[in-house]
Amino acid sequence: MIIKMKQAATKRQVEAIGRRVEAEGLEVQINVGQQRTVIGVFGDTSATDPQVFRILDGVEDVIRITSPFKMASRSFREEDTVVEVNGVKIGGKEIVVMAGPCAVESEEQIIQCARLVKKAGGKILRGGAFKPRSSPHAWRGLAEKGLKLLARAKEETGLPIVTEVLDSSQVLLVSQYADILQIGARNMQNFTLLEAVSQAGKPVLLKRGMAATPEEWLMAADYLLKQDKCGVILCERGIRTFSNVTRFTADVGAIPVVQEKSHLPVIGDPSHSAGYFGYVPALARAYIAAGASGLIIEIHPHPKKARCDGSQALTFSDFERLMGQLKAIASAIGREI
Amino acid sequence: MIIKMKQAATKRQVEAIGRRVEAEGLEVQINVGQQRTVIGVFGDTSATDPQVFRILDGVEDVIRITSPFKMASRSFREEDTVVEVNGVKIGGKEIVVMAGPCAVESEEQIIQCARLVKKAGGKILRGGAFKPRSSPHAWRGLAEKGLKLLARAKEETGLPIVTEVLDSSQVLLVSQYADILQIGARNMQNFTLLEAVSQAGKPVLLKRGMAATPEEWLMAADYLLKQDKCGVILCERGIRTFSNVTRFTADVGAIPVVQEKSHLPVIGDPSHSAGYFGYVPALARAYIAAGASGLIIEIHPHPKKARCDGSQALTFSDFERLMGQLKAIASAIGREI
Amino acid sequence: MIIKMKQAATKRQVEAIGRRVEAEGLEVQINVGQQRTVIGVFGDTSATDPQVFRILDGVEDVIRITSPFKMASRSFREEDTVVEVNGVKIGGKEIVVMAGPCAVESEEQIIQCARLVKKAGGKILRGGAFKPRSSPHAWRGLAEKGLKLLARAKEETGLPIVTEVLDSSQVLLVSQYADILQIGARNMQNFTLLEAVSQAGKPVLLKRGMAATPEEWLMAADYLLKQDKCGVILCERGIRTFSNVTRFTADVGAIPVVQEKSHLPVIGDPSHSAGYFGYVPALARAYIAAGASGLIIEIHPHPKKARCDGSQALTFSDFERLMGQLKAIASAIGREI
Amino acid sequence: MIIKMKQAATKRQVEAIGRRVEAEGLEVQINVGQQRTVIGVFGDTSATDPQVFRILDGVEDVIRITSPFKMASRSFREEDTVVEVNGVKIGGKEIVVMAGPCAVESEEQIIQCARLVKKAGGKILRGGAFKPRSSPHAWRGLAEKGLKLLARAKEETGLPIVTEVLDSSQVLLVSQYADILQIGARNMQNFTLLEAVSQAGKPVLLKRGMAATPEEWLMAADYLLKQDKCGVILCERGIRTFSNVTRFTADVGAIPVVQEKSHLPVIGDPSHSAGYFGYVPALARAYIAAGASGLIIEIHPHPKKARCDGSQALTFSDFERLMGQLKAIASAIGREI
Repeated sequence: MIIKMKQAATKRQVEAIGRRVEAEGLEVQINVGQQRTVIGVFGDTSATDPQVFRILDGVEDVIRITSPFKMASRSFREEDTVVEVNGVKIGGKEIVVMAGPCAVESEEQIIQCARLVKKAGGKILRGGAFKPRSSPHAWRGLAEKGLKLLARAKEETGLPIVTEVLDSSQVLLVSQYADILQIGARNMQNFTLLEAVSQAGKPVLLKRGMAATPEEWLMAADYLLKQDKCGVILCERGIRTFSNVTRFTADVGAIPVVQEKSHLPVIGDPSHSAGYFGYVPALARAYIAAGASGLIIEIHPHPKKARCDGSQALTFSDFERLMGQLKAIASAIGREI
Repeated sequence: MIIKMKQAATKRQVEAIGRRVEAEGLEVQINVGQQRTVIGVFGDTSATDPQVFRILDGVEDVIRITSPFKMASRSFREEDTVVEVNGVKIGGKEIVVMAGPCAVESEEQIIQCARLVKKAGGKILRGGAFKPRSSPHAWRGLAEKGLKLLARAKEETGLPIVTEVLDSSQVLLVSQYADILQIGARNMQNFTLLEAVSQAGKPVLLKRGMAATPEEWLMAADYLLKQDKCGVILCERGIRTFSNVTRFTADVGAIPVVQEKSHLPVIGDPSHSAGYFGYVPALARAYIAAGASGLIIEIHPHPKKARCDGSQALTFSDFERLMGQLKAIASAIGREI
Repeated sequence: MIIKMKQAATKRQVEAIGRRVEAEGLEVQINVGQQRTVIGVFGDTSATDPQVFRILDGVEDVIRITSPFKMASRSFREEDTVVEVNGVKIGGKEIVVMAGPCAVESEEQIIQCARLVKKAGGKILRGGAFKPRSSPHAWRGLAEKGLKLLARAKEETGLPIVTEVLDSSQVLLVSQYADILQIGARNMQNFTLLEAVSQAGKPVLLKRGMAATPEEWLMAADYLLKQDKCGVILCERGIRTFSNVTRFTADVGAIPVVQEKSHLPVIGDPSHSAGYFGYVPALARAYIAAGASGLIIEIHPHPKKARCDGSQALTFSDFERLMGQLKAIASAIGREI
Repeated sequence: MIIKMKQAATKRQVEAIGRRVEAEGLEVQINVGQQRTVIGVFGDTSATDPQVFRILDGVEDVIRITSPFKMASRSFREEDTVVEVNGVKIGGKEIVVMAGPCAVESEEQIIQCARLVKKAGGKILRGGAFKPRSSPHAWRGLAEKGLKLLARAKEETGLPIVTEVLDSSQVLLVSQYADILQIGARNMQNFTLLEAVSQAGKPVLLKRGMAATPEEWLMAADYLLKQDKCGVILCERGIRTFSNVTRFTADVGAIPVVQEKSHLPVIGDPSHSAGYFGYVPALARAYIAAGASGLIIEIHPHPKKARCDGSQALTFSDFERLMGQLKAIASAIGREI
């Protein structure tokens, strides 16, 4: 941490800060420049809020130097983490495609989807049983019945299941069916839920909040990693910006950034960022070309009849065509699907 | 809802859409323009996702015309809602100031704060017992002990209490102590929590999510209002933008907008938007001048020693000075504190 | 400037950086921490791009400590700058209201406006002769004829004129008529224009770009101040964010921030941030309550017939009512209009 | 255009609007719904500001239905436009890579770059002679001398030149040397410059403004296309958002959107969006995979010694490696470099 003093700061103020820093068990180094004094703070500052120094007399600004996340960082673990789910490895050389409907609607629908995913080379089946909805007037999914249908589809195809858990009270139930527990974007900073999920002993797919910086996202991952009981897969799904021609702005540039800062695998969600099936293939290809470890994609046998988010679901034939393109791109960059 | 057809759309496509709209129990009106056909959709569209029409053949775009929220809207209730808490009226002529520490730290701290709030003309005491923290390594509040201390401060001063509830499992506990249940910005779209809180029969302070549009905020209010068991107070607390000189960007312009669209009272939170005590008074005055029904402000007897967010807490003397300014502004615009 | 080395950085890399820094005529201070080395760079770094150090071997990040603007900063000049225009002082105790139509349309229109501005207590007349328009198909103002009409209105009322200059080729012409040259938001980083205007010897109203940080805004001011021939008035007019219920998001919190960082007067533009007359009064009051030194407001005798931006223009009676409120607020905070 | 009336709007107000619309030469269609009346406005509304109707009595909102740009739109021209520059075709099957240094610094530097670009398969040489700089204290390029050096490099390699023009006064000069005139992001809405450039009879590379919506970008293209004297190439270069881990947020999703709305070719600029050489290859690959017609990339023989933006420049070996990857991706999606 660097404490930048005001130009007019007195020697006494500098000393007072030195004492305050040492009281936190940290080390101080004082640099007296021509224009102003700058105080370096060293030691483990991860539990220290920089703001505590900001309001001390004579301080102009406090600048964090080490990252506020720990277990998720490359300094904590240098080599890439590979999360394994029923034999599927996420974070290695292979690119993993997860696909399925936004919401589970019926046995026929989810089984059709699962078969297609498998046939096309996808490795994990997605499908929502509990759906978070902006409007209280909207349909919210089949709940436990949806989970049972996912289990049926898994039985049929052998594909592991990723599905969302909305509240700490659902963790036990969902864990009985899911192979990966998904934390949605709106819950990325639902810390109670993060802690409950961290205890479940299952891999977690952690979506980035729509207004979350990579730092905040990795701090949320730290909540999950603190117990060291689960593997974490990060998922970029677009951020909220002034640009509203897509539903969210896919932050493709965050892929190499997060890979540099963290050892965790990161995948992309082109369906929620695009918000419209016509733009999904372009973003799916872009995430893969940028180096993502996988994708999560919405498909539906009849998007026009889907009970939710049909506008962003790919038809079966569009999905198969896209998988062909993705395989070609994967091999162009030395990976495989 | 307006469905805008592509220029090349065929008559057949238009008719197919007409049938689909009617199947949803809605009424259709077709306008054939020179360049393109535009289809008007009438009736109660609040449960209909515009996206279901977006992917039908021949459609270029779908534009919502009625708001997606209902109970929170001015069309549902024309006159201003006044929420009453132990005799304090929020949403009327009087401007209500809520103040207190970010987190309850000790009996002495919270009682000192409560006495000051009362003396300076504040009407409600705030104080966090359960603190949501971006980092899992940070301190999270005194939990139930904090609630008991809030009760002590209420006993002492008679001020009603507003405090945050983080998870549906805490609703019962917090309701025993709080007069107003606060939903934090990160939980604005935690729909499970919203539903649990809506059952508690207490007024709710609903903070705006940092990336929430006013529409989404009012849909979240609809979750609370659906049971018609609680009063809702909206709270603008800044949004996330590219501008990082304040912690968040106070969206003061949202005050008149929300007052036009909704009958609910809306207050401002200058502490979280500013993020620095030096900018809090300017934003507090601005929210009031813009017409907010109140404020929620963080204060601390010794900000430099605060266990959280001390940098945005006002000292007692700064708070008293600010209250004087706010009273003068209130009277300048025909209101009172 | 602080150069943060990677944890794995070698002593040799640190030394190489030391030499590179010294080659730029700057001073080096090396802090060897337990986890990593941090290099302090001292001296006049205003002409040094931090990025030149970012790519040196072993560097993880470079953090600027001193502001990249100079003449506009409080360190350059401690006391508030007061810009004087024909006897009107901007930046002092008095709050200065500038008002007038978006575009000058006719002699009658501009003279009616000027009389009202004067009567209601406004001190400066605004009116566009050259209008920047997003669409090439839109009307662009009366050009020199508009300037002549502004001169007529000034003759009639004595009010000084502020009007926009769009291109370096217009500076001479506009300077003959204007008392304050306005640089629009879209031209805030049109550096050729800034330099041309800086030579004209007239006060300049510098609007904030819709995506400009306060730092970039003050660097643009530095372009104007470099010749020391003109006074600069800053104008906050809203920024572009995801929130689209107002035309732009008025960044009211930037007022105290800029006042802290710079000695220049800063005023608010509630018309362009609101984009709708119904929201203008709330934002006008908010800017003043936050401490702005003035306002620039659009008015029109018949907004419904205005040739541009009529939707954000106040009618004469609305403007008079607002001026009454502003006077009351000014006196509530110890200032006057 | 759709005019949405307030629920309480009277028949008289609706009729008054009908007359006003017809007075603009447009056609009216009135839909009386159960809850509210909606007025459809048909005809050529491209020159009509929707705001003129917004403030009429009884109106709640006005919604544009046709796009505000014309010549740049797919409805104006259905097939893709291919811009040809000295035999290089931009917008066809081939993907065109433009590369070179941020600024021309010396004959040796620009000729080395040009040779590499040619050798690696790039088709156009970039290089700045006039540099826009946020700070007035920074170096601004070699001006005409830089243009002459570009001409030397063209002589040597045959590569056409793209270089930026900052002000209408420079158009003639720059046109003598450049094959493509570049409009920078900060000048996208410098309408005087757009008009001057539109007269020069040269292809134009139009960068997207950092806060520009695709609509505004295409309106800016309309300024260039109005004279029908130049070809326009659009260039996405990242937008300003809250996310600051990259210099700008590459809006890769805008590529398919703009291709749907416009017939103009669109390329990507991974250097300015990334802002750091380490992230450039990932974004370059992503833009191509998303379907961009080309790229503009910064390279430098010695990035560590570059006079500007060295941190985002690729070394020669990094550029060659990237070109190899791009060729493989191009062929994976059925295109070529």
